[in-house]
Amino acid sequence: MITVVSVDGLPEIREDDDLAALIAERAALRDGDVLVVAQKAVSKAEGRIVRLADVEPSPEAQELAGDEDPRRLEVILRESKRIVRTRPPLVIAETRHGFVCASAGVDSSNAPEPDTVVLLPEDPDASAARLRERLRELTGVEVGVIVSDSFGRAWRQGTTDVAIGLAGIQPLLDLKGERDQAGYELHATVIAVADELASAAELVMGKTRGIPAAVIRGADASGYGSAHDLVMPAERDLFR
Amino acid sequence: MITVVSVDGLPEIREDDDLAALIAERAALRDGDVLVVAQKAVSKAEGRIVRLADVEPSPEAQELAGDEDPRRLEVILRESKRIVRTRPPLVIAETRHGFVCASAGVDSSNAPEPDTVVLLPEDPDASAARLRERLRELTGVEVGVIVSDSFGRAWRQGTTDVAIGLAGIQPLLDLKGERDQAGYELHATVIAVADELASAAELVMGKTRGIPAAVIRGADASGYGSAHDLVMPAERDLFR
Repeated sequence: MITVVSVDGLPEIREDDDLAALIAERAALRDGDVLVVAQKAVSKAEGRIVRLADVEPSPEAQELAGDEDPRRLEVILRESKRIVRTRPPLVIAETRHGFVCASAGVDSSNAPEPDTVVLLPEDPDASAARLRERLRELTGVEVGVIVSDSFGRAWRQGTTDVAIGLAGIQPLLDLKGERDQAGYELHATVIAVADELASAAELVMGKTRGIPAAVIRGADASGYGSAHDLVMPAERDLFR
Repeated sequence: MITVVSVDGLPEIREDDDLAALIAERAALRDGDVLVVAQKAVSKAEGRIVRLADVEPSPEAQELAGDEDPRRLEVILRESKRIVRTRPPLVIAETRHGFVCASAGVDSSNAPEPDTVVLLPEDPDASAARLRERLRELTGVEVGVIVSDSFGRAWRQGTTDVAIGLAGIQPLLDLKGERDQAGYELHATVIAVADELASAAELVMGKTRGIPAAVIRGADASGYGSAHDLVMPAERDLFR
């Protein structure tokens, strides 16, 4: 059995907050738990916030903006390694980390003040590792940590939460070479366990309720890896 | 809190099995639970099995097959409305239902015998509705039902489970017009709750362990809709 429990009562996160301490005070963590933290909370604690008043939009940003704020599009372009698709004001971009998502992860909802936008963490795996380390320091407990974000998908409506950073987690479960109950070799089955954990956590987090963290118990997902393992290598990507 | 529990001890499912009865005997269902059943089990109960010995591959199937069995590719082509991408022997196709996935959902793993393949249910929403109705009949309990399958994703490694059929479930949670805690309108946030439920269930199901069903409690996902609501309409799809 797996349980998924929201971490309730967290205050609005601000720059330099000790996010691990705030969570540890509100969640009875145990060894082997998976803590899922929404990217927005991590980014705010890390000060990944841009004031639009400080942004000068380029002509490209103005063109992509449509009726939207071109300064926001300028920030998106700065966060992007590559623009994958556009339909103004919608931009699907590859972030500097390699993630393909809407607006290169730049988001205005749940921003700390009006006319600011929140960027993805600079290095979400490192963010996860710091949270994990700090939680061990504070509580003595060894948990896996996932930094999650809501990504849209090609061909499907709606977002699901995925892992953009992780520590102490096995991101992929590779069943290559294992056999099913009929003895048939599962030669193409790799399960994105970290993304499924992020999605399970989203079910209790709730964007409007402002709950940015959840604890999953019983998932047996501990291991090692990087959220980059979840990114399709360019040479195998049929959808670049 | 959400709990996710596997339905253990199910036998290998065969054509015309009363899948709802087999599950009801092994799961203590309650009103409001979400039962997630792997497509493979549903398809087997519905007899959606093709013997490759009965399949004559077309020239197109032979070309796409590479080193693989061209009869399998022939079945994939028959299940496809449109081929989205190919890299032999990998075929990404749009199924007749509108789902974009590898092999049009045709699968050899966990097939009932060698040299057979399992197709997606003809109408997975109807499969879910029948399970839901039969469970109500057998137990008096009103549950939501999701028929799930493991889909790959553009740009990301690994599969996550998604909903390909559903009954008594709200597939999408539309936060349009709702406001976050800072009062910022969440104008582009639609969450694919049914897909997140399918992913959460996968975490306890396990392809090699042969557990094709799980029960999610506490998710508050009841409602109405169709798995087709999770398919991006062609006119909004940037990745056709």
